[in-house]
Amino acid sequence: MQPELSLAEFAATAQPSETALDMMRLSLMDWAACGLAGVSEPLAKILRDKGLGEGGAPQASVIGGGKLPAPRAALINGAISHALDYDDTHFAHIGHTSVGVIPAALAIAEAEGASLEAFLDACLIGSEAAVRVGVWLGRDHYQVGYHQTATAGAFGATLAALRLMGADPAQVVGALGLASTKAAGLKAQFGTMGKPLNAGLAAETGVEAATWAMAGLTSTNAGLRAFGATHHGMADATAFDGLGEVWRMEAVSHKFHACCHGLHAMLEAMGQIDVAAADVAAVQITTHPRWMTVCNQPAPTTGLAAKFSYAQTAAMALLGIDTSAIASFTDEIANAPDVVALRTRVAVQADPDLTEMQAEVRIVLHDGTHMDATYDLAAPLPMTQRAEKLRRKAVGLLGDMRADALWSVTDLDALTAILRA
Amino acid sequence: MQPELSLAEFAATAQPSETALDMMRLSLMDWAACGLAGVSEPLAKILRDKGLGEGGAPQASVIGGGKLPAPRAALINGAISHALDYDDTHFAHIGHTSVGVIPAALAIAEAEGASLEAFLDACLIGSEAAVRVGVWLGRDHYQVGYHQTATAGAFGATLAALRLMGADPAQVVGALGLASTKAAGLKAQFGTMGKPLNAGLAAETGVEAATWAMAGLTSTNAGLRAFGATHHGMADATAFDGLGEVWRMEAVSHKFHACCHGLHAMLEAMGQIDVAAADVAAVQITTHPRWMTVCNQPAPTTGLAAKFSYAQTAAMALLGIDTSAIASFTDEIANAPDVVALRTRVAVQADPDLTEMQAEVRIVLHDGTHMDATYDLAAPLPMTQRAEKLRRKAVGLLGDMRADALWSVTDLDALTAILRA
Repeated sequence: MQPELSLAEFAATAQPSETALDMMRLSLMDWAACGLAGVSEPLAKILRDKGLGEGGAPQASVIGGGKLPAPRAALINGAISHALDYDDTHFAHIGHTSVGVIPAALAIAEAEGASLEAFLDACLIGSEAAVRVGVWLGRDHYQVGYHQTATAGAFGATLAALRLMGADPAQVVGALGLASTKAAGLKAQFGTMGKPLNAGLAAETGVEAATWAMAGLTSTNAGLRAFGATHHGMADATAFDGLGEVWRMEAVSHKFHACCHGLHAMLEAMGQIDVAAADVAAVQITTHPRWMTVCNQPAPTTGLAAKFSYAQTAAMALLGIDTSAIASFTDEIANAPDVVALRTRVAVQADPDLTEMQAEVRIVLHDGTHMDATYDLAAPLPMTQRAEKLRRKAVGLLGDMRADALWSVTDLDALTAILRA
Repeated sequence: MQPELSLAEFAATAQPSETALDMMRLSLMDWAACGLAGVSEPLAKILRDKGLGEGGAPQASVIGGGKLPAPRAALINGAISHALDYDDTHFAHIGHTSVGVIPAALAIAEAEGASLEAFLDACLIGSEAAVRVGVWLGRDHYQVGYHQTATAGAFGATLAALRLMGADPAQVVGALGLASTKAAGLKAQFGTMGKPLNAGLAAETGVEAATWAMAGLTSTNAGLRAFGATHHGMADATAFDGLGEVWRMEAVSHKFHACCHGLHAMLEAMGQIDVAAADVAAVQITTHPRWMTVCNQPAPTTGLAAKFSYAQTAAMALLGIDTSAIASFTDEIANAPDVVALRTRVAVQADPDLTEMQAEVRIVLHDGTHMDATYDLAAPLPMTQRAEKLRRKAVGLLGDMRADALWSVTDLDALTAILRA
C-alpha cells in the first residue's frame, strides 16, 4: 500500500492499545514537566515575546502564559519543551517524538474543545506515525543531516491534528502532501537554539498542514514519497508493517539524566555499582561506535559540553553529583577539581556488537580488583517503576507542588491552566 | 569566501545599479498586478479566511484587504501573488523571484515604516540573492525535486528582510542559519495549490528567520552550506562571482502570456508572423529538449492544461485569441472546434542547440511556401518597451483605473492601500 494511504487508514481507524496509551500519558507528563522547566531558557523568552507581541485569536495556550492562534502556540510550545533536551526519545528512528507531536495535538485539541482522552489518543496516533515515518525515511536521511525530530515529527504532528479533526482518508493524504512541502529541519542546528526551534517547526507544520487541508487547499497525493525521494529517504518497505496493531510507542525511552541520551545506558550501569570515588583507580566504558562522535568529549569546560561527555558524567556519578538535575550541568561543576581529577581516569571504547542502547562499565579499584555492570535501555522497565522515576524527575524540575498538580490532571482545561501558569 | 559571508557582505554594503533598480521596479509593478488579479483564486480565499480569522497585530497589509502580523501577511501574499503563475521568472536558476522575496520585504518594510525606495532596494537585494543562491544550489537541486522558488527564494526573502532591518554581518549569518532549517518546498506540488503555497512559505521563512535572528535566536553559522549538503546542492563556486557588481536581476524575465514560461519564446516568434489562420497548412515548432516534458501537451481539454501546450497556444495565437489574458485559458477555449482543428497541424521537436529561452517557428502555407521566425527571451528588450508591455498586461489584469493607480505609486502607503483595496 502507498505510505500515504497506510497513514490515512491508521489515522481514521486505529484503536490504541492500553499499554501504548499508558506510555503516552507518561510521555505527556514528562513533556509538560520539561516544557514548564524550559520556560526560563533564553529561546523561550525570544519566541514568547515575539508571539505574544503579534497576538491574535486566543485559540491555544502558550507554555508560561497567554493564548495565541493554534499554529503559533504549537511552534512556541514545541521549541520551549525541547529547550532543555530532556524530553523523550525513540531509538527506532532516533528522534524526539513528544516535542514535535504533542504541541500540535494540544493546540488543535484546545481550538476544537476536545477531551483529555481524545487529546491523548491523538498524541499517540501522531507519535506512532512519527516513529513509523522516521523508520521509513531511515538512517541515510538522518546521517546526511536531517533532524528526524523535525522531519518525521512534522508528519506525526500532522496526523495528530487530523485525528482530532476527524479527517477522512482523502483529507489525510492531502494534509500529508502539504506537510511534505513545509517539513524541514537540519542537524547542523545541534548545539544552538535552532535545535529546539526545529521541534517547534514540526509542531507548527502539523497544525498548518492539517487545517489547510481541511479548508480545501489542494496538494500532491504522493507527498510522503516526494519528500522521501528528495530528502535521502530509504523508503523502508517494512516501516508500516503492523501499523495499528503493533505500537512502537510502547518502546519509547525517557530521560532520567539531564544530558545526551547516548550517556544514559552508561549512567544506569554506573548506578548499579556501589563504590566510593576515592577507591576508583580507573573506569572503562564500552559503548556503541555511533556515540563516540556524539557524546565523548574528554575534557568539557562548560555545562553544555558536559552534557556530551562520558568522562565528565561518569565522574559526576561516582562523586554523587545528581545527573538528573539540570543544575548539575554548570560551567563550575564542569571545571571542579575533584571532577576533573576523576574524569582523567575514565577511558571510553567502542564495540560494534553493542546496540546503541547498551553500555558496559568496568570500575577498577586501587587494590586491583574490579566491578562490572551493564545496562540496556531497551530492557523492560515496569510501568509503575517508570512512572515513579518520571514523577521524581518532575519533582526535581518543578518542585513538589507543581509536579503533584500536573500528575493529578484529569481534564484538558486543568492541563492547559498549569502550562500557562 | 564562505557563501554565508559573501551574502552577509552583500546585504550590508551593496550599492544597486540603476538598471537593476529600474528592472526591480517593473517586477514590483508586475508582482502587484498579479497579486491583485490572484485574489479571487480559491487558494487566496482559504489563506485569507484562515489568516484573518487568527488575526493579530496589524503589522503588514494583506492583498485583498486587512492587516496581519508580518510573517502571516508574507505567507498569504506570497501564495496569492503566485496563484496565477503569471509573475516574473529568472532562468539562471529557474525560479520565480518576486513571489518569494517581495512579500517578505513588504511585510518588514511596513512593520519598520520604511520608504518606498528602501523597500525597492531590499526587494532587489533579496531577489539578486535568491538567484545567486539558486545558481549555487544548481540544477541537481532542481532536478531532484526541489522548487527553487521556495528554497532559494527563502534565502533571498531572508536577505531582503535583513537589508531593511539594518542587520550586521553576524546577524545575517545567523538568519541564514535559521532560514536553512525552515526553507522547504517540493516540485511535486506543481499543478496543485501547493505550488503557490511554496512561494508563501519562502516569504514567511524570510520574515521569521530575519526577525528571530535579530532577536537573538542562535543558529549554525554554516546554514547555507548545511542546506546545500543535505538538499542535493552542487555548491557552484562561481555562483557568487561579482556579487554586488554584476546584477543578474537585470536579466529577469517577465511573462507576457498567461501560460507556462516555456511557451513564451514560441509565442513571441509567432507574433512576428502575419498570417491568416485559414492559410496555415502546418506549424513546426523547435524548442529546447527540457520543455518537451513540461509544456508539450498535444491535446489539452482544460484551461489549466492549455497553459502547458505548444499546440494549443500556437493555435490560439494564430486565431487571434489573446494569450496574455487569463480569461483565454478556459475549458471552453481548450475544446473550441477551430482551435482543436488548427492545433492538430502543429508539430513540436526538440533541438539541444537551442537554449531554454529560444524557440523557432516555421509556418507552412497551403500554397507550399513557408514563413520562419525565431525568438530569444534573453534578447535585450529596451526598458521603455518592457515597461509599456507590462503596463498593458496590468491593464488587462486590473482594468485601466487600477493599473493607472498602481503605476503612479510614489510612496509605500499608497502601494499598500492599493494592495488592500
